[in-house]
Amino acid sequence: MKILLVGGNGTIGKRIAERLKSDHELIIAGRSTGDIKLDMSNGNDIDQLFQKTGKIDALVITAGSAPVKPLEELSFGDFQQGFESKMMGQINLALKAIPNIKPGGSITLTSGILSHDPIPYGTVLSTINSAVNGFVIGSYGELLYKGIRINAVSPALVEDSAEKLSEYFPGHTPVGMKEVVDGYIKSLKSNITGKILNIPA
Amino acid sequence: MKILLVGGNGTIGKRIAERLKSDHELIIAGRSTGDIKLDMSNGNDIDQLFQKTGKIDALVITAGSAPVKPLEELSFGDFQQGFESKMMGQINLALKAIPNIKPGGSITLTSGILSHDPIPYGTVLSTINSAVNGFVIGSYGELLYKGIRINAVSPALVEDSAEKLSEYFPGHTPVGMKEVVDGYIKSLKSNITGKILNIPA
Repeated sequence: MKILLVGGNGTIGKRIAERLKSDHELIIAGRSTGDIKLDMSNGNDIDQLFQKTGKIDALVITAGSAPVKPLEELSFGDFQQGFESKMMGQINLALKAIPNIKPGGSITLTSGILSHDPIPYGTVLSTINSAVNGFVIGSYGELLYKGIRINAVSPALVEDSAEKLSEYFPGHTPVGMKEVVDGYIKSLKSNITGKILNIPA
Repeated sequence: MKILLVGGNGTIGKRIAERLKSDHELIIAGRSTGDIKLDMSNGNDIDQLFQKTGKIDALVITAGSAPVKPLEELSFGDFQQGFESKMMGQINLALKAIPNIKPGGSITLTSGILSHDPIPYGTVLSTINSAVNGFVIGSYGELLYKGIRINAVSPALVEDSAEKLSEYFPGHTPVGMKEVVDGYIKSLKSNITGKILNIPA
């Protein structure tokens, strides 16, 4: 399989790359490192991306961020940041990928546990993660006819981020990286579509 | 209760107004009609809104839209439209309402069935409705400390729109307007918070 992994040098992305690299043609795109440099919030970058990759079998995205701050300090601009990065960065890439994915291929996006299990200061991420899930639910039916599947992996706090982030996630048990990567493998290689894969389920 | 109803002349809003007007101080805001003219996607309009209303007990929003079109025709601009109107229109109003709602008060937003029960051409609405639900889930915990509740009502295809919209909603049974208004009443007058009230449940 020829797989484009956007965010392939991030916390989750590099674990996915480790699992996939020996058996697949893996193209890694990242903001500052990787086979292709890509700013996900830049429409031109995205337009040029698929000229560089050619047709692919699968798109996996593990990139995108959104501000974390107290509700009373949140402005329109904070939501705009999350909109441009984790929300529309992923959605735009998915839309532009559609004509460049071979039938039988797939798109896997990343949302996250805050869509349904909130933390203090996490309102923008709860909003944006939910939007990413909604895009998957809204689009999978039309993608069926193109022979393309789409899912989102929605991880809990992951082990490799736990030391840095656990103070923001009181009472959250970090999930192991193997289990997280398994979610992406399921989306890539099973035949499910329109699913939000919560990790752990 | 002093209630600001944004979208109070729309399909759902006018039914809510009918139910509330005899027993409450009701202020109706709308794009072209109502006590206050308001373009929800205009930050200045929202800033001035609460100078006009003064402190309120409750904000109810039944306004906002997003484009409906085939997935392969969707552009960044279509999502931007939904972002500015139904998503950030509501979120911005909610954020600006917080310092203007009396303790014990509430915010009620409107999402919709497409967040979890999609239709053809409905991808932007599935995305935006999910985002609105995510905002409620992300924000209610911080609003507890201000004595403010927040919920979203997520209606199915409603009876008063069924004639116009049912061709877009194959197999959907329209929900009666009384049941829809009941959802808003529950959010206003019960003590629940952080809930997505699917109508029907």
